[in-house]
Amino acid sequence: MSYVRSLANTIRNRSHLFFIERIETLTNAPNFKTNEHLLPVVAQDIATGKVLMLAYMNRAAWDETLASGKAVYYSRSRERLWRKGEESGNIQHVREIYVDCDADTILLKVEQVGGAACHEGYESCFFRQVEQDGSFKVVGKRVFDPDEVYKK
Amino acid sequence: MSYVRSLANTIRNRSHLFFIERIETLTNAPNFKTNEHLLPVVAQDIATGKVLMLAYMNRAAWDETLASGKAVYYSRSRERLWRKGEESGNIQHVREIYVDCDADTILLKVEQVGGAACHEGYESCFFRQVEQDGSFKVVGKRVFDPDEVYKK
Repeated sequence: MSYVRSLANTIRNRSHLFFIERIETLTNAPNFKTNEHLLPVVAQDIATGKVLMLAYMNRAAWDETLASGKAVYYSRSRERLWRKGEESGNIQHVREIYVDCDADTILLKVEQVGGAACHEGYESCFFRQVEQDGSFKVVGKRVFDPDEVYKK
Repeated sequence: MSYVRSLANTIRNRSHLFFIERIETLTNAPNFKTNEHLLPVVAQDIATGKVLMLAYMNRAAWDETLASGKAVYYSRSRERLWRKGEESGNIQHVREIYVDCDADTILLKVEQVGGAACHEGYESCFFRQVEQDGSFKVVGKRVFDPDEVYKK
């Protein structure tokens, strides 16, 4: 094979590789179809493995989370970015980020400041366990008093 | 107090208690606003604490999950109930169920048959980790070959 042809092949192969990598990157990114599109986000305590909460992100929340290293969600009730802990001080330091197979759900492994993610003062928002008969019992312990933390 | 009045009070008190319990049950139940309304469901491996996947339930999926003890979701792409593992055999035995503070997210702690929840053959659907620069790397290990399990 001539040197020129060999070089041409090398470039073609590299372009091909580059192209494949680009596609890989694009398809693996969270698939925000529009700037307003919300994806569910699971926050898990990196130390205990406890599932703390589920919230939502739009593209702006995702970008700010990556840039700041702190969890930023989109609050559907307040209809604006919600910097987790902005009121309570219980921010989440994001240590690891995962995206699922369909690129439509995000998993954050976080360090939860204050030991409680839930606005009701519990470590986890999932503090109610469902019994087989459909009844519920509270299984979490209150870490803080919400009336103290969220003063009206 | 006459026997009749005492009996009347007992009945009234019990009705009151019953009423309170009903309210408690209703407000803590997952808040499916309509039969079609979908709520996100996090499935977590009860042994390892790994977050396996996120899927959705409508009221029928919730009812069947409670009745059968196996995870039943609503597939948005197939637009029907999806008995997890119906094709792959990798069913999820539901060991614990939690509902969050707003009653709009469900957490299942499951025993994952086959050791893999993801249709791509990974233990968890969250097998792609995001680097600080926004690029991705695959961190999960394939447990099964999807081409073998989902034969066309």
